[in-house]
Amino acid sequence: MKKSVDGRSEAVEKALKLLGAAKTHYLATNGSHGHPNLRAMAPLKIDGVKSVWFATYEGSSKVQELLKDGNAVIYAEASRDATECRLWGNIEVLSDDASKKYVWSEELRDHFPDGADSPEMRVLRFDVSNGIYIDKNREIFEFKN
Amino acid sequence: MKKSVDGRSEAVEKALKLLGAAKTHYLATNGSHGHPNLRAMAPLKIDGVKSVWFATYEGSSKVQELLKDGNAVIYAEASRDATECRLWGNIEVLSDDASKKYVWSEELRDHFPDGADSPEMRVLRFDVSNGIYIDKNREIFEFKN
Repeated sequence: MKKSVDGRSEAVEKALKLLGAAKTHYLATNGSHGHPNLRAMAPLKIDGVKSVWFATYEGSSKVQELLKDGNAVIYAEASRDATECRLWGNIEVLSDDASKKYVWSEELRDHFPDGADSPEMRVLRFDVSNGIYIDKNREIFEFKN
Repeated sequence: MKKSVDGRSEAVEKALKLLGAAKTHYLATNGSHGHPNLRAMAPLKIDGVKSVWFATYEGSSKVQELLKDGNAVIYAEASRDATECRLWGNIEVLSDDASKKYVWSEELRDHFPDGADSPEMRVLRFDVSNGIYIDKNREIFEFKN
């Protein structure tokens, strides 16, 4: 892979740019009855291509699924220039104060009126194992952590 | 469920309207290494909430995954009014002439220059077993085939 000035690959830089610009990520989990499950999520923090953080409710179907099986995939796209990114990895369901404070922003207030102290809030930390970035010419760039 | 004039439930009618309006559906499959896989797809035909049809290449990762395990989920959303729809079911990978002709439109010509006769073209028929429609108040409506 081509390396950029600071040592990161160009593919990783492009993936990060896309992930950061996309207001919506699509998250698939291993659901029930042998079927995958899938929903749109707003990414709250993106730590390089290492971890992507989300928030959800304790009682949500994804929390139930992820406690059984943390294997997951994230998809994000920039439909304007037909680029896309997929990340595979494992999700940890977290309920500690530090994680809640880390992802907290006032935009979450509608969902969690008690702020980062909301007891029903769960934090999902998606730890990336590998990923691909697909450019507008359909060329695929792979990266691994 | 409330029934509409022609006997279909309101949830099904709303789901169909959303599915038809969404240019992009998100399709998750049971991928490799225990992880789900996920990508954006353009729906080509929508036969009620019974079948949704797509086209792809013989060599694509989704074809390889679906030949091993046809269990899948489709997600579509109308982000403008915060409604969404999920359909669970099974995908058949088809290569017969009738299926190719059924989904063919000139918009596919960029991908398949030989038209509906393109040997590398595969048709995915997603047969819906059940689904949910979520309205803007986050109320969930379920339906089954």
